[in-house]
Amino acid sequence: MIIVMKAGATKRERDEVIKKIKEYGYTPHIIHGTTRDVIGAVGDERGKVILQSIEFMNGVESVVPILKPYKLASREVKKETSVIKINDTVAIGGKDIIVMAGPCAVESEEQIIEVARVVKNAGAKVLRGGAFKPRTSPYAFQGMKEEGLRLLAKAREETGLPIITEVVNPETAELVAEYSDILQIGTRNAQNFELLKKLGQIQKPVLLKRGMSMTIQELLMSAEYILSEGNHAVILCERGIRTFETATRNTLDLSAIPVLKQKTHLPVVVDPSHATGNYHYVAPMSFAAIAAGADGLMVEVHPDPEHASSDGPQSLKPENFTAMMVKVRLFAEVAERSL
Amino acid sequence: MIIVMKAGATKRERDEVIKKIKEYGYTPHIIHGTTRDVIGAVGDERGKVILQSIEFMNGVESVVPILKPYKLASREVKKETSVIKINDTVAIGGKDIIVMAGPCAVESEEQIIEVARVVKNAGAKVLRGGAFKPRTSPYAFQGMKEEGLRLLAKAREETGLPIITEVVNPETAELVAEYSDILQIGTRNAQNFELLKKLGQIQKPVLLKRGMSMTIQELLMSAEYILSEGNHAVILCERGIRTFETATRNTLDLSAIPVLKQKTHLPVVVDPSHATGNYHYVAPMSFAAIAAGADGLMVEVHPDPEHASSDGPQSLKPENFTAMMVKVRLFAEVAERSL
Amino acid sequence: MIIVMKAGATKRERDEVIKKIKEYGYTPHIIHGTTRDVIGAVGDERGKVILQSIEFMNGVESVVPILKPYKLASREVKKETSVIKINDTVAIGGKDIIVMAGPCAVESEEQIIEVARVVKNAGAKVLRGGAFKPRTSPYAFQGMKEEGLRLLAKAREETGLPIITEVVNPETAELVAEYSDILQIGTRNAQNFELLKKLGQIQKPVLLKRGMSMTIQELLMSAEYILSEGNHAVILCERGIRTFETATRNTLDLSAIPVLKQKTHLPVVVDPSHATGNYHYVAPMSFAAIAAGADGLMVEVHPDPEHASSDGPQSLKPENFTAMMVKVRLFAEVAERSL
Amino acid sequence: MIIVMKAGATKRERDEVIKKIKEYGYTPHIIHGTTRDVIGAVGDERGKVILQSIEFMNGVESVVPILKPYKLASREVKKETSVIKINDTVAIGGKDIIVMAGPCAVESEEQIIEVARVVKNAGAKVLRGGAFKPRTSPYAFQGMKEEGLRLLAKAREETGLPIITEVVNPETAELVAEYSDILQIGTRNAQNFELLKKLGQIQKPVLLKRGMSMTIQELLMSAEYILSEGNHAVILCERGIRTFETATRNTLDLSAIPVLKQKTHLPVVVDPSHATGNYHYVAPMSFAAIAAGADGLMVEVHPDPEHASSDGPQSLKPENFTAMMVKVRLFAEVAERSL
Repeated sequence: MIIVMKAGATKRERDEVIKKIKEYGYTPHIIHGTTRDVIGAVGDERGKVILQSIEFMNGVESVVPILKPYKLASREVKKETSVIKINDTVAIGGKDIIVMAGPCAVESEEQIIEVARVVKNAGAKVLRGGAFKPRTSPYAFQGMKEEGLRLLAKAREETGLPIITEVVNPETAELVAEYSDILQIGTRNAQNFELLKKLGQIQKPVLLKRGMSMTIQELLMSAEYILSEGNHAVILCERGIRTFETATRNTLDLSAIPVLKQKTHLPVVVDPSHATGNYHYVAPMSFAAIAAGADGLMVEVHPDPEHASSDGPQSLKPENFTAMMVKVRLFAEVAERSL
Repeated sequence: MIIVMKAGATKRERDEVIKKIKEYGYTPHIIHGTTRDVIGAVGDERGKVILQSIEFMNGVESVVPILKPYKLASREVKKETSVIKINDTVAIGGKDIIVMAGPCAVESEEQIIEVARVVKNAGAKVLRGGAFKPRTSPYAFQGMKEEGLRLLAKAREETGLPIITEVVNPETAELVAEYSDILQIGTRNAQNFELLKKLGQIQKPVLLKRGMSMTIQELLMSAEYILSEGNHAVILCERGIRTFETATRNTLDLSAIPVLKQKTHLPVVVDPSHATGNYHYVAPMSFAAIAAGADGLMVEVHPDPEHASSDGPQSLKPENFTAMMVKVRLFAEVAERSL
Repeated sequence: MIIVMKAGATKRERDEVIKKIKEYGYTPHIIHGTTRDVIGAVGDERGKVILQSIEFMNGVESVVPILKPYKLASREVKKETSVIKINDTVAIGGKDIIVMAGPCAVESEEQIIEVARVVKNAGAKVLRGGAFKPRTSPYAFQGMKEEGLRLLAKAREETGLPIITEVVNPETAELVAEYSDILQIGTRNAQNFELLKKLGQIQKPVLLKRGMSMTIQELLMSAEYILSEGNHAVILCERGIRTFETATRNTLDLSAIPVLKQKTHLPVVVDPSHATGNYHYVAPMSFAAIAAGADGLMVEVHPDPEHASSDGPQSLKPENFTAMMVKVRLFAEVAERSL
Repeated sequence: MIIVMKAGATKRERDEVIKKIKEYGYTPHIIHGTTRDVIGAVGDERGKVILQSIEFMNGVESVVPILKPYKLASREVKKETSVIKINDTVAIGGKDIIVMAGPCAVESEEQIIEVARVVKNAGAKVLRGGAFKPRTSPYAFQGMKEEGLRLLAKAREETGLPIITEVVNPETAELVAEYSDILQIGTRNAQNFELLKKLGQIQKPVLLKRGMSMTIQELLMSAEYILSEGNHAVILCERGIRTFETATRNTLDLSAIPVLKQKTHLPVVVDPSHATGNYHYVAPMSFAAIAAGADGLMVEVHPDPEHASSDGPQSLKPENFTAMMVKVRLFAEVAERSL
């Protein structure tokens, strides 16, 4: 931690800061600058947020942290990329690019099994489908709940595809974990710390979506919540951030892929469907995600998007998904990955 | 709902749209434009999100909703501003401006009682203090939990001030409701719909903070979740949105006050402490909030901000809070309000 | 400047950094941390942007500047607030709050003289009006140009009000300066550095609007362009930044007022008309700006907003402006200012 | 244009709106809804911004435009993608992906010629280099100006590569046009309408960078300024938008590629260097841009980034650029393009 003193700070103010630094167990180092002094505080500053109170002291201009506030998620702590095992044949973070596909919401047995077969044939390795649906409007369809989980499990039985579905609160986390192979945390719950802690205590892979207004560092802090409770199987998902642009529902931040690859060992997947909100843009953004180094994709596919109970406009029809996957495979090869 | 057809849409495409509109129970009206057709669909479109699937149809350029997606929160439905009764003497939304003040986190009996006395003397009408703390870092202080609630209740006993504290998950909602006079939903939970529904079922006033990346319309949708479950005592709180500017922690969107006053009957308060993240800016932003028409303020006050267990840099010292309140009263008078 | 080395940086990498620091004329100070080294580089780092190339060196994690990149605009360099003299009776930055009012665009002699009289009677001290109009659409009204300047001058003759109008390119800067008392730089030109330099060479007060996506620090850098060319009469104007919120045209960042007051000696005014884009919100935001410490306001007033050639929806009618000014005066008094 | 009336609007208010619509030469169509009326105004609404004044009328809730405000840039007006010819062998917008590469700023004859050779050998088709440099700080290097243009021309002579360089104001536009094959408009000038008009009058291809806070629609409006002056050779460039994320300098909005491809016939290139501000992220983002459908790239290459006079940290070394181009070619092939 570096403490920058104000230009006109007095010796007494500086001494107070040094005293406080020592109280907290750090070793101070003073650098006398041309217009102001700078004090380095040596010691492991993580977890000691109390140090921010130094910002409050007289004569202090600003305090600059040196260490990243996350530890277990950091590539400094674990150099090799984590490979998260989903079942005996599927793992995320290895050479294989994993495509997770399916409808936004499970609507019926027929629908989910039909989609499961289609996406499997096209090369998807995981079936997605919402049973508990967090919706912006209280008047919108809220999901089939446990019945939806049962239908997902049936689709897994039929096709062998592992399933991913969203957990919306701590109470139903264990119920969802009984059925689902991957537990998804949605964008609106990405800083629901109670939910993060709960999933940290369940030994199932977690897919953590980036919150709409979360920085990459905050995403890693949310991952740290899960990791620090003992669950190390965390997959990060970029799904668009909120910006002033309205031509797409959110702005897909593909730069987050190389940034995350540099900072963390956790695998990174991309959800182009929710990011763009428009099925026309899903294929190009999927190709781009693979080219940028993503470990997987999460794509909405619906047999009849016009009658979907949620998010129809962003869902691909089966034939479009199948066509897209042909090119995803080619891009994956250039990226030295397999599908 | 207005459906704008593409410039080159065929008659068949248009007919398909009209057919679909009728299926959903709307009455279609076609307007033949110079370059394209526009179709009006008459009927109550709220709750029928399925209509968005029309966007997906061939020949459709865009679909423009006419009705606001919220109903109970709307000023069209209820013209007069809601006055939310907190106890026998305190109500929010009436002529009185209500200042809620206290520390970010309850730390000890001594601390919370001292602050309660200070803020009461200065003119605050509600005591705030966090018992359950949602923190970005898992390594940061997470609050005193139930013990914190007991200390808040003790401070109420001592001073007569009603209390407000945050609820972080549905499980502990009833516990918090036993102690607290107002239930606060924090910015990171503003779209935690499970929590919103839960608080909609408890008959206690709820203060709903705007999420960092929520539009004003989405804030009203979250309020609608609480209202539609039967709890009509909702207070909205502007606390800064996330923008590119880093000189303040968030950007306090004071324009939200007149916008909300126009669109909803619910009272609106402002939290300048979390918005700016810097105690220097709390007083000017408090004055501005009152001038802009806010019904109240929520301000952090700590007897010893340098040793606060959370958010020290944004907390006012008691003497600064007291000085600020003198001017808040004067600004309130010009705004034709009382303190 | 502080250079943070990577956790595993070698001694050789560190030595290379130290060598480079010395080459640039700085004195290095090494702090050996628990997990990494930190190097302080002592010397005046302003203008030496070349130092950023250190970020590029092997073993370097990040480089943290200590000094602000602006000098002349900084309150460290000049402690007392600058009072910018407009004419013999009007100055901005002193005890008087200066309200600048008038139509978005000058449309006719009758219109501008009528508005000038109205705003003068209500208490405005400066007449605003656009002669050269930068418009998002090439098909929109682009202003009356030199004829507009002549009409503004005539309105000044009639009423004694000094005038402010926008300069849109370096070529016409001197022409505008012949007529206008204050030269305005619009939001879209706030980083048009050629224009800033040009106005730095003309000895007339400049009102610099914040760019829609400019940080406060960048606004001060743009001011520095004008100041460093020799023109010290710069007035800053907050007029809303671009965010995801669409209920207002831009998001008025009133926190910028106390932030700027802390960082710079230059006066700060607020334009609530362009920020909100809606005349309903102009009065509350004007009151809030005064309460937050603004030195002035810039408000659009039009005798017949329904027929305005630009920005009608955000213009106040004369009677609304007059009513608003009554309350502006009261808020100004509480803020210990006069009108 | 659709006018939505308020729920309680009177018949008289509605009649006033209809009268006004007719005055402007539109044909009104009334749709009687369940809670309010909606009025369609038929006619070509482009250029008639005056219509926005209807928003101001009593009883009007909102006005929704139907037509896009741009015409010449629209794919509705011109279906086939424009291919912009640069010289006898290079064109942008056709099957070939065009890579423009070179240093941020021209620094010396030796530097620019060395880079020109390197990038040509690696497959670049255009040499980029700044002669006039718009810099945020007045104390930063502002470019070699005309001498820089001469050196660029020399590099063209040596290598045969056409050149692109930035124009910073209308005065020097013709000077730059004498030397340069493509005229670049930088992000800070993307709404400098005087400059746009000037370049619309010069018959040279223009590369228009998206402003940091411009929507895609506004980018097309700026293009419309150039097109409407008679210059149809406009290339659009996505270079990152300003968001809350700070891990990259800006957020590269790759979704803008498919959106623009849908809305306009103009070619689209991507600048990953300025967008990310970090050379580590340039290659993955280049690959992603090609995969998403970009027509070209604009990449910074510097023989000695550590000693670059501007933007060193985002410049690729020659060997990294060459390595990147090998993979760019492979991604281009999968995208059914050639390099």
